Amino acid sequence: MPQTPLQGGRYRTTEEAGISVSDAGEFGLIARIVARLQQGDNVVVGPGDDAAVLSAPDGRVVATTDLLVEGSHFRRDWSSAEDVGRKAAAQSLADIVAMGATPTAVVVGLAAPADLPLEWVDGLADGLRAECDVVGASVVGGDVVRSAVLTISVTALGDLGGRAPVTRGGAQPGDVVVVAGRLGFAAAGLALLLAGRPDDPLTHAHRRPVVPYAAGLRLAVAGATAMIDVSDGLAADLGHVAVLSGVRIELASDDLPLPAELVEAGLALGVDPLSWVAGGGEDHAFAATMPDASALRAVAMLADLPEPVPFQQVGRVVMGDAGVVFVDVTPSGPAGHDHFAL
Amino acid sequence: MPQTPLQGGRYRTTEEAGISVSDAGEFGLIARIVARLQQGDNVVVGPGDDAAVLSAPDGRVVATTDLLVEGSHFRRDWSSAEDVGRKAAAQSLADIVAMGATPTAVVVGLAAPADLPLEWVDGLADGLRAECDVVGASVVGGDVVRSAVLTISVTALGDLGGRAPVTRGGAQPGDVVVVAGRLGFAAAGLALLLAGRPDDPLTHAHRRPVVPYAAGLRLAVAGATAMIDVSDGLAADLGHVAVLSGVRIELASDDLPLPAELVEAGLALGVDPLSWVAGGGEDHAFAATMPDASALRAVAMLADLPEPVPFQQVGRVVMGDAGVVFVDVTPSGPAGHDHFAL
Repeated sequence: MPQTPLQGGRYRTTEEAGISVSDAGEFGLIARIVARLQQGDNVVVGPGDDAAVLSAPDGRVVATTDLLVEGSHFRRDWSSAEDVGRKAAAQSLADIVAMGATPTAVVVGLAAPADLPLEWVDGLADGLRAECDVVGASVVGGDVVRSAVLTISVTALGDLGGRAPVTRGGAQPGDVVVVAGRLGFAAAGLALLLAGRPDDPLTHAHRRPVVPYAAGLRLAVAGATAMIDVSDGLAADLGHVAVLSGVRIELASDDLPLPAELVEAGLALGVDPLSWVAGGGEDHAFAATMPDASALRAVAMLADLPEPVPFQQVGRVVMGDAGVVFVDVTPSGPAGHDHFAL
Repeated sequence: MPQTPLQGGRYRTTEEAGISVSDAGEFGLIARIVARLQQGDNVVVGPGDDAAVLSAPDGRVVATTDLLVEGSHFRRDWSSAEDVGRKAAAQSLADIVAMGATPTAVVVGLAAPADLPLEWVDGLADGLRAECDVVGASVVGGDVVRSAVLTISVTALGDLGGRAPVTRGGAQPGDVVVVAGRLGFAAAGLALLLAGRPDDPLTHAHRRPVVPYAAGLRLAVAGATAMIDVSDGLAADLGHVAVLSGVRIELASDDLPLPAELVEAGLALGVDPLSWVAGGGEDHAFAATMPDASALRAVAMLADLPEPVPFQQVGRVVMGDAGVVFVDVTPSGPAGHDHFAL
């Protein structure tokens, strides 16, 4: 009977280890995934046909795609399959909300090694569905293929509900810069995992981001002139807004949120926690620019949320050379994540 | 100066070999790709923001996603980058047309090894754009990440133009089964490549499928009750239609098209060419069921196309156990492609 090596030198039989995706075959695998999903009322044709059909009541559709590659974006020894599913969905759903749109559906590509346990695929499907449930979206289709490297693509679609899209190019001098959601938690969690401290509660922020979708949508409704989800780091992502809007964005390190748990982790690891707050991505907080009056409206609208979301002003938009500057101390550390940096 | 091994033991410098994606960095790479694209009138927000926005005049949107993995779906020594781009786009665009919808846009994920030459990415972008141009769609967004295995995801969107989607589940007893497009060409081309005959003209059909998009749309307008694009093999794909429609589909080997070039290739390789026609996928012909009157209408509508597309009846829909049967001789060879078969 074939055997699978386990960590620590122990062996278990394939039977114990469960069956793999190659045992199920392409169509068995798809049927198994689809059985774990649920389709919303806006789905006209769900999984199982050449393509899905869903309603797009606004007459426009918002679309974004992201890839997650094992080793680069997640590690199976750090994250459960459900964690990976939630993270994969969150990454694309946050992009939809950053346009001011409500996510409606995702389609998912899975490139899997032949020996990937079927249970892992079950967990992935559950995680994708659970994250989509947070925003009322459905997993409406996908593709499964074999690859030596476990890779997940998620394309999310959304509906603008009659509003103008909130692009990166609309920031105006005089606007304030606000952030809804957490900054630096995922980066701190990753640093703790890399330092061999997988039991620190902060590591959950790396495994499974807590994306403030509802807050992001409220920023759009309150009158955001530009918005972006913080995936590469606050300074880097606001840099895109500054360049595309042709404005200068002034931040102050003193105004950045610095929660006690980040300070503690920074002390433990000998890292300036501000570098996580200013340079860490993957929390998918929403950074937006808006006039003062809109910011006041946003405060009121966010107070209505069932769970409180961190919200504060971190800077302002001024005229000047396009870019982001710190008016006090520039935080140390990486300026943002480049997927091809060596 | 670093050197890159070439086939045959010769070496060339990195300079000769051109720069790679890791030299360009994530944002340089994206800018380079975007510069090669062009946005259609239906694109509200194109590449460069959190997500793209495009018009969906029908009020519904059709969506499908596919992954291509190097080694499984293409080989760089067999196909140019432009071939791979065209094939990747074709696979998803054909799925949109198989629903009776007009493709409007694609978003693309690229997971690339760090040493992938930038020229290869240029070619991929050109191929994606060229195939999208055939149907008037635009490449509106994407994601680039690093991976040891070159992987491409393409998600295509489409608009139904007020028509009902043509699913796999609508075939009715009494319908005829028709095919628009070529069958078996890509499979024969792959067999020739595997046999070490890369110069045979048929190998182009593997590298770059010629998808009869306009013909597929005309089948929908003519009144197709069910439709599918032949990606896994005619018998296997019609099997999906039979099962989802709850009907029996009778095919006759004698009625399958058997062009001279396939007969010749079959003789050269010692393969029954009917196995390619009945079991080979990736030509993305459109197989549809429809009443006789619609088939007559389809003949007239296809005659209007600027370039002739092969079109013929290959079988009929009857009552009985759901499945596909050959009423004469069952062709030999694989019944269809299973991406996880060992």
